[in-house]
Amino acid sequence: MQTLDRLVHGFARLPGLGRKSAARLVYFLLGAKDEFVESLARDLIALKRDTRPCSRCGVYAEGELCAYCADPTRDTGTICVVEESRDVITIESTQSYRGLYHVLGGAISPVDGVRPADLTIDDLIRRVREHGAGEVILATNPTVEGETTALFLRDRLQAACRPGAELTVTQLALGLPVGGDLEYADRLTLARALNGRTAV
Amino acid sequence: MQTLDRLVHGFARLPGLGRKSAARLVYFLLGAKDEFVESLARDLIALKRDTRPCSRCGVYAEGELCAYCADPTRDTGTICVVEESRDVITIESTQSYRGLYHVLGGAISPVDGVRPADLTIDDLIRRVREHGAGEVILATNPTVEGETTALFLRDRLQAACRPGAELTVTQLALGLPVGGDLEYADRLTLARALNGRTAV
Repeated sequence: MQTLDRLVHGFARLPGLGRKSAARLVYFLLGAKDEFVESLARDLIALKRDTRPCSRCGVYAEGELCAYCADPTRDTGTICVVEESRDVITIESTQSYRGLYHVLGGAISPVDGVRPADLTIDDLIRRVREHGAGEVILATNPTVEGETTALFLRDRLQAACRPGAELTVTQLALGLPVGGDLEYADRLTLARALNGRTAV
Repeated sequence: MQTLDRLVHGFARLPGLGRKSAARLVYFLLGAKDEFVESLARDLIALKRDTRPCSRCGVYAEGELCAYCADPTRDTGTICVVEESRDVITIESTQSYRGLYHVLGGAISPVDGVRPADLTIDDLIRRVREHGAGEVILATNPTVEGETTALFLRDRLQAACRPGAELTVTQLALGLPVGGDLEYADRLTLARALNGRTAV
């Protein structure tokens, strides 16, 4: 197989890319500047060599600690628990959170064979106990698996909390998306929005 | 900037990928096998080093001639003219064509500043004259620019044809897409389908 076909084949294996979009990418790269393609190739190698989960929270980072754990200005009393490292980027993009993170590595899913022991739950409990976090925000996905994981975590966190220590466990609000239309909201979301209604 | 961010940034510059899908790709690669990512990086370097337009027809190839020009079983009497090298993949996927190709390198577009001299039209005329092609299929895109280019090529080809030599210039049929619905066809396509109606 020629390089061109091999690359199209390789790109087509990436999530969200089919054969046609992979071919489009590769032909674009053929016309792109040499330096751009070379830097992409170099960074791909460096990515696998240098980037690994932060030893404390699991967010992908270069070096021992991630940018958040290493930042002394972050609020160490709050831990936001996410399923995957990439969720951190999404939360950071809101510029509304200044605490630390904890990456679970997935969500509890009996169907997919993911048990609580497969996730970094024990590490989370240890962190909360040792560093005495005041609030844990459960930012798992609003899916069956994510909600199951959140409920499981709530129970584990409350049971593990030292007597007398004040630990608040919260969850992201569920409701209508901003800019959305009531008419297009699904039944479940609307029900959650009703239950979680707030005073104006 | 860290490798991860630099890669997301790089991938986001590719056609069809935004910041979110680029991030998704990079996180997928973080979890992928080392060999897969390394082979992608290696192929990216090789792509820019080894792949260049075929000296005869302009189709991207490794080596002097492309797979089609080098294949002695292809019908050298027919040349299919396309705008870009990637269009060849699409035509080959039909398995309905056994002739050769000619890549124009774009379409005439006064708005974008693409003049006939910017395309490989002279090379095409020379090929048709020297090798005595019997048919030239104009497979430019069914857009204003593509149609303009096709009309321009038709006139140039007919004027350049040696007296006595038989040259047929054809164009891809325009009409309803197979599996399409009359109701959803746009007016222009339907008009072309009516004009080009065939006996049953």
